[in-house]
Amino acid sequence: MTIPTYDDVVAAAGRIAGHAHRTPVLTSRTANEELGAQLFFKAENLQRMGAFKFRGAFNALSRFDAAQRKAGVVAFSSGNHAQAIALSAKLMGIPATIIMPDDAPASKVAATRGYGGTVVTYNRYREDREAIGRRLAQEQGMTLIPPYDHADVIAGQGTAAKELFEEVGELDALFVCLGGGGLLSGSALATRALSPRCQLYGVEPEAGNDGQQSLRSGVIVHIETPKTIADGAQTQHLGTLTFPIIQRDVNDILTVSDAELVDAMRFFAARMKIVVEPTGCLGFAAARKMGDALRGKRVGVLISGGNVDLERFAALLA
Amino acid sequence: MTIPTYDDVVAAAGRIAGHAHRTPVLTSRTANEELGAQLFFKAENLQRMGAFKFRGAFNALSRFDAAQRKAGVVAFSSGNHAQAIALSAKLMGIPATIIMPDDAPASKVAATRGYGGTVVTYNRYREDREAIGRRLAQEQGMTLIPPYDHADVIAGQGTAAKELFEEVGELDALFVCLGGGGLLSGSALATRALSPRCQLYGVEPEAGNDGQQSLRSGVIVHIETPKTIADGAQTQHLGTLTFPIIQRDVNDILTVSDAELVDAMRFFAARMKIVVEPTGCLGFAAARKMGDALRGKRVGVLISGGNVDLERFAALLA
Repeated sequence: MTIPTYDDVVAAAGRIAGHAHRTPVLTSRTANEELGAQLFFKAENLQRMGAFKFRGAFNALSRFDAAQRKAGVVAFSSGNHAQAIALSAKLMGIPATIIMPDDAPASKVAATRGYGGTVVTYNRYREDREAIGRRLAQEQGMTLIPPYDHADVIAGQGTAAKELFEEVGELDALFVCLGGGGLLSGSALATRALSPRCQLYGVEPEAGNDGQQSLRSGVIVHIETPKTIADGAQTQHLGTLTFPIIQRDVNDILTVSDAELVDAMRFFAARMKIVVEPTGCLGFAAARKMGDALRGKRVGVLISGGNVDLERFAALLA
Repeated sequence: MTIPTYDDVVAAAGRIAGHAHRTPVLTSRTANEELGAQLFFKAENLQRMGAFKFRGAFNALSRFDAAQRKAGVVAFSSGNHAQAIALSAKLMGIPATIIMPDDAPASKVAATRGYGGTVVTYNRYREDREAIGRRLAQEQGMTLIPPYDHADVIAGQGTAAKELFEEVGELDALFVCLGGGGLLSGSALATRALSPRCQLYGVEPEAGNDGQQSLRSGVIVHIETPKTIADGAQTQHLGTLTFPIIQRDVNDILTVSDAELVDAMRFFAARMKIVVEPTGCLGFAAARKMGDALRGKRVGVLISGGNVDLERFAALLA
């Protein structure tokens, strides 16, 4: 698979138009005053199914040919990608099989089934979900759509930053959360095309800084599943497609602590009246940490999603 | 003071342009499926200072002459109106004194002080805030801006519904929360001008249905301060300006229970990823209660605000 370009982002934008929400760009004078900067928050927590992942999933499935549509899609994920694939597949009448761990929260399994997906469970201590995915794909002719290392997924995710630049113009800096790099590499394609001088930062949880290690060492670093509340950034390594884009186009990769994520989550709820999942707080938490370096700048922040169990959200706020 | 007209709403829209946010209209397929209707949520919780009240306050203060600006403004409010006056006054360099109940949410008191307002507290069960306000106005030459019974306030509040209709076109029904009637009567002016056949509903907490009693009896009914989590709708009676508009233009006034408000609040957080204060949940709670009557309809819901203490919000969600 070849590395996608900005043209692929533009094509993706055409495919998702009318299906994905064009999410609002929110502002906060309190945040502006705190940072001495002008901030623009792209609110993908208000995206369909609650996260940017719908963009990449819908774009990828839109490119299926008739045989692929008939045979169906398979995806492995315990989070937003699973729901994004299940919902996109339902909308296009494509059968979807989602591989989830047998100890996944009942609410996530129910949500995926609610979107019409067939859930296949596996034992996360004894079985390899990627191997199961490949086997199902081979045996039943299904197409495997991985959560980030796929050109159509990356191009789809890039449409969020594209919309942001189209709405607010060029920026001095953009902060994007980083797990496997689908959103960051897609955002990089849009940034270099629409705001080439913008400083682009990926942001990871401190406990899972494989992306930072990779960028600094020049090779994809693999880590153990990190312990962090940012469950969407618990990936163990970047992808073979996302890493070269990040190497080429991203200025730096920053990290924040779980406590800083909770602070940002509380700010979003108290001051901006939005529910943001821990992973979605990475970008703003990093911007706050940067201090005076952002003074007088125009700063974009990508809020990735808002899918957090209410009980957990309430516990983190209290 | 004469009853405002839609022309006053149009003039208010011109005055607040560039100062108030043009808040987004949110949609939710889950809500649509639940009601079998097409819902449009005007998200005034994303308004400046967290509630629609900024519209009316800014409009009212914009009309002050030089002497009024110098002497300052006084306002009584359980919350959002106070912040709205304090912030608007700060923006225009007008001194502001705010009379608030001593049991008002801590976040609202702190925010009012944060906007530079001088806070004077009173006991809401024993003292008459209107008398305190009138006395301060008389003694110190300040202009009293009441929270709802004022033509400029009503006209300002009407700009939210005006924006909603401009964005989504005519509607079959519109649900608006009701305390003293500022938002409802302003919305009525916009509705009758822009979507004349729309069924317009005011919604009150069950415990404080003075508006419903007033509409049905034809006179303004006064009640004791009701005990409800909808602290923005704890008003004891409609106004002499808001009531005639409501009588003329509103189709009915509905009520919902506190439990129904909490259900709606949880829906907003879990499915729409937004923080809505209890009062802001009135409209949607009533729409959900209406059942099949809304099937196939285009329905507007005004979300009034999102100013709720995080601790209280977390407790209600959990």
